[in-house]
Amino acid sequence: MQISPLLESLISAFRCLPGVGPKSAQRMAYHLLQRNRQAGLHLAQELNEAMINIGHCKECRTFTEQEICNICANVRRQSNDQICVVESPADIFAIEQTGQYSGRYFVLLGHLSPLDGIGPSDIGLDLLKRRLESESISEVILATNPTIEGDATANYIAQMCSEFNIVATRIAHGVPVGGELEMVDGTTLSHSFIGRQKIDF
Amino acid sequence: MQISPLLESLISAFRCLPGVGPKSAQRMAYHLLQRNRQAGLHLAQELNEAMINIGHCKECRTFTEQEICNICANVRRQSNDQICVVESPADIFAIEQTGQYSGRYFVLLGHLSPLDGIGPSDIGLDLLKRRLESESISEVILATNPTIEGDATANYIAQMCSEFNIVATRIAHGVPVGGELEMVDGTTLSHSFIGRQKIDF
Repeated sequence: MQISPLLESLISAFRCLPGVGPKSAQRMAYHLLQRNRQAGLHLAQELNEAMINIGHCKECRTFTEQEICNICANVRRQSNDQICVVESPADIFAIEQTGQYSGRYFVLLGHLSPLDGIGPSDIGLDLLKRRLESESISEVILATNPTIEGDATANYIAQMCSEFNIVATRIAHGVPVGGELEMVDGTTLSHSFIGRQKIDF
Repeated sequence: MQISPLLESLISAFRCLPGVGPKSAQRMAYHLLQRNRQAGLHLAQELNEAMINIGHCKECRTFTEQEICNICANVRRQSNDQICVVESPADIFAIEQTGQYSGRYFVLLGHLSPLDGIGPSDIGLDLLKRRLESESISEVILATNPTIEGDATANYIAQMCSEFNIVATRIAHGVPVGGELEMVDGTTLSHSFIGRQKIDF
């Protein structure tokens, strides 16, 4: 193929995005060049600024360009004595959209994985420990992913909480709301039986 | 939602890409921040360079950062007296990958569309006319899209070719290779009957 070298390297650069294969990368490059160069330049600038300036919150480790993120700096949030532990900043976004939770967060940026050499300090558990010691926290809600690693990480943190006499809870796993029972896999279904709750009148 | 303003504007900037909705844009931003900031910076730089430096070939109007694109500048291509007319630079990419064609191209960057005020000069037909006059061209292959506008544009150019006694051909429309007859729509099927060819032994 004899296309322009600049165009070729733009197409291969697009491949760094998740879910973008050779066809989509090509479509993106041609689309911007043909229809919207201004938006392309704008995206380049936003990307550059975000990659350079966005760091991690000193309290909860989520993404922010400030020292402390907006959620940790919020006085109303500080008066709530719950901390929700999640694996990634995107999980905060998902939980915030439910409007169900008004406490603060702690982001692990991963999960315990001894085989990959990822231990407690790599996921910031020393920082979490310091917060459990120094702040008045009544409950740690463990919202790590329902995977083997996520469960193991949740158990490890729960044990840490018990040292400080802090209640640790795990979010419920079960049949998704709106789903059909026969479409749900066996592990999820057995989780939903184990986690069954009494109906009170 | 109280996420970082820089992150929010990065997510909305990603929406300029084709096929990228709010969820994918969010996934892309978080992915780059968490896993691959270097690739994000590289993409920003490539985007910036491409948007600023890529212009159009003076001969065929495809994308290139040079004055004349690699295909038009190729001596072996110049000795071929065919010109293939396509609607967009991405079409050249697709045709080149077949390896079936070794002549030069002409890119319309659109199609005739009187209702939208797009006339012959907007799709570079004055430039094509000059090439038909000055160069020794024996055949113009019309590979515009098989749509009403693409067909109309092909017909218009075919008429232009007849003024210069140049053969104009249209690429075949019919049943896609590997497809099943019963899955093909009626218009395509009737095209494949109209375009049937005698089998010679």
